[in-house]
Parts: sequence; C-alpha cells; structure tokens
Amino acid sequence: MKLLRHGQKGQEKPAVMDANGKIRDLSSIISDINPEVLSPANLKKLQAIDLSTLPEVPTPERFGTPFTGLGKFICVGLNYSDHAAESGLPVPAEPVLFNKWTSCFGGPNDPIVMPKNSVKTDWEVELGVIIGSKARYVTIEDALRHVAGYTVINDVSEREYQIERSGTWDKGKGCDTFGPVGPWLVTADEVGDPQNLSMWLDVNGKRYQHGSTSTMVFNVAFLVHYISQFTTLYPGDIISTGTPPGVGMGQKPPVFLKNGDVVKLGIEKLGEQQQTVHTWNETLLD
Amino acid sequence: MKLLRHGQKGQEKPAVMDANGKIRDLSSIISDINPEVLSPANLKKLQAIDLSTLPEVPTPERFGTPFTGLGKFICVGLNYSDHAAESGLPVPAEPVLFNKWTSCFGGPNDPIVMPKNSVKTDWEVELGVIIGSKARYVTIEDALRHVAGYTVINDVSEREYQIERSGTWDKGKGCDTFGPVGPWLVTADEVGDPQNLSMWLDVNGKRYQHGSTSTMVFNVAFLVHYISQFTTLYPGDIISTGTPPGVGMGQKPPVFLKNGDVVKLGIEKLGEQQQTVHTWNETLLD
Repeated sequence: MKLLRHGQKGQEKPAVMDANGKIRDLSSIISDINPEVLSPANLKKLQAIDLSTLPEVPTPERFGTPFTGLGKFICVGLNYSDHAAESGLPVPAEPVLFNKWTSCFGGPNDPIVMPKNSVKTDWEVELGVIIGSKARYVTIEDALRHVAGYTVINDVSEREYQIERSGTWDKGKGCDTFGPVGPWLVTADEVGDPQNLSMWLDVNGKRYQHGSTSTMVFNVAFLVHYISQFTTLYPGDIISTGTPPGVGMGQKPPVFLKNGDVVKLGIEKLGEQQQTVHTWNETLLD
Repeated sequence: MKLLRHGQKGQEKPAVMDANGKIRDLSSIISDINPEVLSPANLKKLQAIDLSTLPEVPTPERFGTPFTGLGKFICVGLNYSDHAAESGLPVPAEPVLFNKWTSCFGGPNDPIVMPKNSVKTDWEVELGVIIGSKARYVTIEDALRHVAGYTVINDVSEREYQIERSGTWDKGKGCDTFGPVGPWLVTADEVGDPQNLSMWLDVNGKRYQHGSTSTMVFNVAFLVHYISQFTTLYPGDIISTGTPPGVGMGQKPPVFLKNGDVVKLGIEKLGEQQQTVHTWNETLLD
C-alpha cells in the first residue's frame, strides 16, 4: 500500500495509490495520515478496503509529506562504507546518530531553499524508515515489526554549517526545506526486504549517486534495535539510514548546489522526488 | 505570569499561578497551554484576566510540562566558560548546538529513569527559553521579542552515550525522562533581564552547581538571533542555554547519579524542580 498526502501545504488530504497507479481519496475513511494511522492494526484496516470503491483523485499538483505528526527525525551517519571513505572518515564501530530539526520536514518536490549566503549545500539520497509502533529496547529479531513503512528522503546538508561552524552536525542538517520526504509511505509488507533496494540521485541530469541498501554497514533491523536503546521510538518517528557514495562534498573538486539546479532522486519501489534549488527566498517558505 | 499544567501525564489541565502563589484554573479560558497560546497577542489576552475570578486549584499532585506541543528541543553546549574548562574543552568561537529528542520532555518532578546499565548519568541545570513567535534571521536587537517566557530545565545527560559511543552528543541527551521542564513558564515581562538570574543544583542535599546567567558566553538574545540563521524557530520550540560549572563529570573524581539519589535544582524567579533517580524501570515510563 502506498499512502500519500496531496494538496497545498497545511491543507493536505489523505490518499492511497492503487495497484494501477491511480490515486484514491481516503478522506471518507481517515481525517489524515497521522501517527495513529500508522499502527499495525490501523494499517491492516486500511489494507482491507476495496480501493476501487474510493473516489479517484486527479494527478495532484503537489505531494505533501506522506504523513503528518513527525516526532523525531533521527539520522544515521556514515552508514555506507564507500560514503565514509569519500568523507575521509573511518567506518564507525557503532552507528553515528544525529538529528534533523523537525521543522525541515517537507514534501518530496518542494523547492530546496538554501540558507542566506550558503555555498556548500549538498544532497544525500536515503532510505527513510517510518515507525508504526512503540519500540523500546527491541531485539534485532523483533525490530522490523515496529516499521510501518519506507520512504525516500533527501538528507539535504549544508557542509560548512555541519562541519566548520563548531559543535555537532545538527547545525547543517535541519535548515528549512532540508528534509524532503516521500512521495509515498510504502508499507513494509509491500517493500519486503529493505536491504535490496537500488537508489540513485541526479543533479541536472548527471548521475552522482547510485547504490543499493544492500551495502549498508548497519541494516534497518539493527538500527531500530540500536536506536531503541537510546530513546523510545514512537509511531511517526523517522530514521534516515545514511547515504551511499556520490555526495557533492566527495567530488574532486567538490560540487555544491546552486540556484536553479534540479535534483532528482529515487529508491526502487519507493518512488521519486524532484526539487528545484533556490538561493534564499523567504516567499518560498511558509 | 506563571503558566503551568497539572494532573496525570497526558491528562494535564492548564492553570496559572497568581501573585499570592495560588493556582487558578484556566480550563474555562483555554483548552491547553499549546504553542498558539504562547503568541504575544494570546499571552496579552491571558494577562488581562482578573485571576481572582478563576477557580482555585488545590496544590497539584503532579506538575506536567508547562506547555504542550514541543517542537524543537535545541540545546547550547559549553555556554559558560567555567563549565567548558571543567569539561576540558575550549570556549567555542560560536555557539555549539545539539539536540534533545522531544520524547524526553517531561514534568519538573517526574523521576529520572536511567537507561539500562547506565553508569554515567549526570545533571545540568539550565535556563530554558520558550519561543512565542516565529523567528527567522532575527537581529540581536529584535530577538527577545520572540521569547514567550523562561523555565527551568535539567539537561540530564548520559556521558558515556554522549562522548564514548561514536558520533554527535545526541545519543546521550535525549533518553527517556532526560528532559524535565518547569514547573512554570514564567512570561518574559515578569522575568525582566534574563542575564541576571542565579541558578543552583543539589544532589542529596549537597550543592554541586551554583552560578548565574550573567556569566553565559553567548546571551539569550544572541542565541535566538544565531539559531534563527540555521532553522526557523516556531512557537513551542525551546532553547536550553547551557549549564554553569559543577556537573558530575567535572568532579574529581567524577560523580554520577545512582538509584535513589534526589536532584533538586532551581533558577531565580523560575521555581524549583526535584527528581528522584531510578535504575531502569519501564513501569515508571508511559
């Protein structure tokens, strides 16, 4: 099942994509796709619906975030060995965690608005894991039972803020518009094995990133298990699981985003995103 | 004005403390103390009410977080020069930012439940700044106009997770129960100058921290200005502004919290907190 939200920012309506790629309205069934909807029991209820009975929605002008009520936006760093190498850093002994401020959460095709005077805004295609039930000290074996579904994330990053401005990485990770998520939340049953998904990212038609979740250092089950020892995961939390090689910072010489660039990215089974990059322009924000 | 919420977790009711220290019920005026209530216009409306007309509430058994709907829990590190020295770290050239996961947000007197096998759980009394209106690229001069009020925070920290477990500090800062906030949100007009407040923290009656917000490296106005360049601040976001010297890690030899310890802390004009420390016990959580 592919859950999505469409419409103008703040006025999104819930919908589902059927097996023929048609978008069906869920407004008569649920008020929104919120954390409560992501529970195993409630997803099962939605899956039991005959989608052909629901009204078809015309192709949306805008996709919103595929759910609302984001709790924590937890990111994993250096989780592909080749990406650690291009960053000039060793593969960590255990997962590196950091944070994206939840206010950067946005639709999959919303513009990327670079902060004022930013010169090192970069891209990172990542598999997003959306939590569906409370996970606290879960075992590796049980971990995937707490996953509602998967999605595409562009972990947009300002490298100067992240690395050169004192302290943790958080400063360069959670700027406004730096968290495009979607287009869909694809439920875990439909995705199957999360460790065998190809992924890619192009800038202006040039392929920079291509990889597969098969080369993660720490896989999804381990990450859910691991993170659940440091904080309880709740429905509506996201884990962004790291990026494969090919970020701008790793190019020789480095390449960063500039006004007018078009970023396209996607993950097998999870759909595609496309963002246009803008220099600072407050009217493009809320 | 001192705003507060009282009652069992998840069932808190809004209230206000009057000039005589009596708690008055706000349920007939607002459904809860949420981010909307924190706007300058809405705080002004509350301030216009004759509190003596509101029903008195008996002394609450439990104080909840002083508002609900926490957005971002942004922390500032090493913001008192003496604390940087005891941590063996230089005073940073610009503010160090990190994150507490929002799920650690709790009432001021709720128990501190240490993670399983934790041996380095530590304390940090901090001035909390609660945002009342959207702040994006604000000047230092305008910054304090975006502050709804102030509160006491214990930035509870697991030093092994924070420092010895790879990556950023976030791993040791946002564990469940690690963010006691309150008892009150004291509105900015009542606090006056935020840079002249004494603060203290005792463990089992022994004073470990005593300091004053007058010795912050970067003051509140600068911090709001500074952070607003990396992410837009919204009503219901908190900035925890760093701790003065005297944390457990800085003792010789280091002292960490253990089962049964009682932590008391307070800030001038902002009230006091008291937490009892427990080894891992899931029944004390939700």
